[in-house]
Amino acid sequence: MDRQEFISKLVTRNDTKIVLLVMDGVGDLPVNGRTPLQAARTPNLDALAKKSELGQAVPVIPGVTPGSGPGHLGLFGYDPIKYQIGRGILEALGSDVEVGEKDLVARANFATIDGDTVVDRRAGRPATEESAKVVEKLAEEIKKIEDIEISLYPGKEHRFVVKFTGEGLDERICDADPQKTGLPIVWAEALVPEAEKTARVVNEFLRRVKEILKDEEKMNFALLRGFSKYPQIPNFEEVYKLRAAAIATYPMYRGLAKLVGMNVVATGTTIKDEVETLKEIWNDYDFFFFHVKKTDSYGEDGNFESKVHVIEEVDDLLPEILALNPDVLVVTGDHSTPVPMKAHSWHPVPFMVYSGYVRAGASEKFDEFECARGVIGTIYAVDEIPLMLAHAMRLEKYGA
Amino acid sequence: MDRQEFISKLVTRNDTKIVLLVMDGVGDLPVNGRTPLQAARTPNLDALAKKSELGQAVPVIPGVTPGSGPGHLGLFGYDPIKYQIGRGILEALGSDVEVGEKDLVARANFATIDGDTVVDRRAGRPATEESAKVVEKLAEEIKKIEDIEISLYPGKEHRFVVKFTGEGLDERICDADPQKTGLPIVWAEALVPEAEKTARVVNEFLRRVKEILKDEEKMNFALLRGFSKYPQIPNFEEVYKLRAAAIATYPMYRGLAKLVGMNVVATGTTIKDEVETLKEIWNDYDFFFFHVKKTDSYGEDGNFESKVHVIEEVDDLLPEILALNPDVLVVTGDHSTPVPMKAHSWHPVPFMVYSGYVRAGASEKFDEFECARGVIGTIYAVDEIPLMLAHAMRLEKYGA
Repeated sequence: MDRQEFISKLVTRNDTKIVLLVMDGVGDLPVNGRTPLQAARTPNLDALAKKSELGQAVPVIPGVTPGSGPGHLGLFGYDPIKYQIGRGILEALGSDVEVGEKDLVARANFATIDGDTVVDRRAGRPATEESAKVVEKLAEEIKKIEDIEISLYPGKEHRFVVKFTGEGLDERICDADPQKTGLPIVWAEALVPEAEKTARVVNEFLRRVKEILKDEEKMNFALLRGFSKYPQIPNFEEVYKLRAAAIATYPMYRGLAKLVGMNVVATGTTIKDEVETLKEIWNDYDFFFFHVKKTDSYGEDGNFESKVHVIEEVDDLLPEILALNPDVLVVTGDHSTPVPMKAHSWHPVPFMVYSGYVRAGASEKFDEFECARGVIGTIYAVDEIPLMLAHAMRLEKYGA
Repeated sequence: MDRQEFISKLVTRNDTKIVLLVMDGVGDLPVNGRTPLQAARTPNLDALAKKSELGQAVPVIPGVTPGSGPGHLGLFGYDPIKYQIGRGILEALGSDVEVGEKDLVARANFATIDGDTVVDRRAGRPATEESAKVVEKLAEEIKKIEDIEISLYPGKEHRFVVKFTGEGLDERICDADPQKTGLPIVWAEALVPEAEKTARVVNEFLRRVKEILKDEEKMNFALLRGFSKYPQIPNFEEVYKLRAAAIATYPMYRGLAKLVGMNVVATGTTIKDEVETLKEIWNDYDFFFFHVKKTDSYGEDGNFESKVHVIEEVDDLLPEILALNPDVLVVTGDHSTPVPMKAHSWHPVPFMVYSGYVRAGASEKFDEFECARGVIGTIYAVDEIPLMLAHAMRLEKYGA
């Protein structure tokens, strides 16, 4: 049985408030004997650890490194293997593109062709402003194909997003991208009969792009891949009977929260801004997904000191969050982004649960090693939401 | 979704080298307060523990004691509940009998019958040489039945192996064995229509055995059971994109490795011989399954001191393995064989992962208790290969 389905039957409402504080990519490996969590001066996180239960979470299954999509789906209680978010959708979410149920989106690259041969898959990496102008030109000339509306969104350098909106779209078409230079243009092809209309519309789009851009020196064609429709996914608010708000400074995470059905609220660009937002909306919601991005960014950069600093910044602001008196507070990450690896990794993610019902007393601080020995043990990330609901007294007893 | 199938889609190739060092049945229980791993003098394993991540593995599910088949299948990344290896196949593998896709094998016992009644299911436990002579006699007289070739292989005392080779064989027949003495002979019976030919051939074989051996005093009949075909199992090398070598001194483990598709290389009879073999073939493979048998044998014997000694022998040779600079080294067992139990058990198995990407620093030594508190936590044995692939940087990120 699907765990989420099982849990949903036990969920009940009350007026508790739950905060899920995610330091993206917070888990790490020791550098000179200490991880960033260990090196950071975190009196408030450590004080909270003494009053909390600790554990570590496997984001997908052991050994599997999640991207941001699966990492957050797991944290939100969705089996990240069952629910796969297409690359086009993630690109759209990351570009702040609104996506709905009638939309099909694709990641697009400007490319250079010579005749029908792709000679540069990134069109010489144009400046972002240059490619934005070309996207605008295309948007003006291609508004509709058959009964399908076309929307274009500029991205960085050669990248942009194409959104097709209308009835009967199907994501089961192959990428319109030869993947390598020196090969001929690849046209979209339906992988199932139901996708024939989509392939036809995509190919007509590509033909028009080719015609409109024929005099461009480098950006004279486009490659489309990662076609994806808005995924069918159970609604977070319905499944967990929670009025849920998402506070995040980056589009990708706002998009992921929206995708599962949370309310994305406007906020500023700093963690302090996010805390202010949390205070403002405190009375309006039951569940707060609070996302801190920079722990991951500095992990990816291999910047130990700055990752430490972001953790310390969160620590400084923690008392303000606690002053709101959340019934349940979980502090964790969506995956590890170890500084020495400069990338996401598969290592389990430390987490702690603070509530009125914890088996507290085993730990003095919050780090990877304390969490690995924590009283919760090693669980899957997908089990954290049920655990939070339980600590919020929002899960009924199973069976008599 | 099948985990192995999921993992296989993330596997990528590189030139890293992975060693899986299995001390068969290494896990144990304390005797006078110490397990063999704790009692052994193991400076090299302990030094490695300081640089490694520790954890413990559940071979099948909690409480389930695996035989050698499921124990190793799990370690090789195959769900040991999904892939069941028939007893006939295991007996054949353990007797160094080559088994292929057209073969059906059965475990056989010489038995004593009086008229049509089985009066001794082991024919008075004949000496191994005596029964080997009778096997030879049968082999000379029964070479083929219908279009099926018959091959016979002597075993210990009353035991031998029968291999049927040809088209249209089906393992779904009942055992030709009354299981108890004083009962009439049981003939093979097809459990599905597709197995009728097999039952007919087996029964003709038994009739001929009865005829040929009618003048033997004790070994005057045979009982056949555990009919099994070569299992359909995904190929290890294909699934994990690894050139894999197996180094093992005992036929059963060579057979299990061969069954999943590893290359079994010739070696001697000692652990030292195995290390020499490892050195010789180091450049030819990516993955090395290195099997140490005697930890299990002495566990089964209830011989604490000798089990300690085998662990110390492995410890002595460890520097030679490390000198090869494996990118990933896992030290573990396939199950526990506690000395006080003189048998396999269900207890979790200690393991450690050494690589360039470990959360090291939590442990000073390698034993059951340190591993139970290790940073990896408690996982299933089947997840160890994915973890090893991750540490070898051979798994791509899942999702964007």
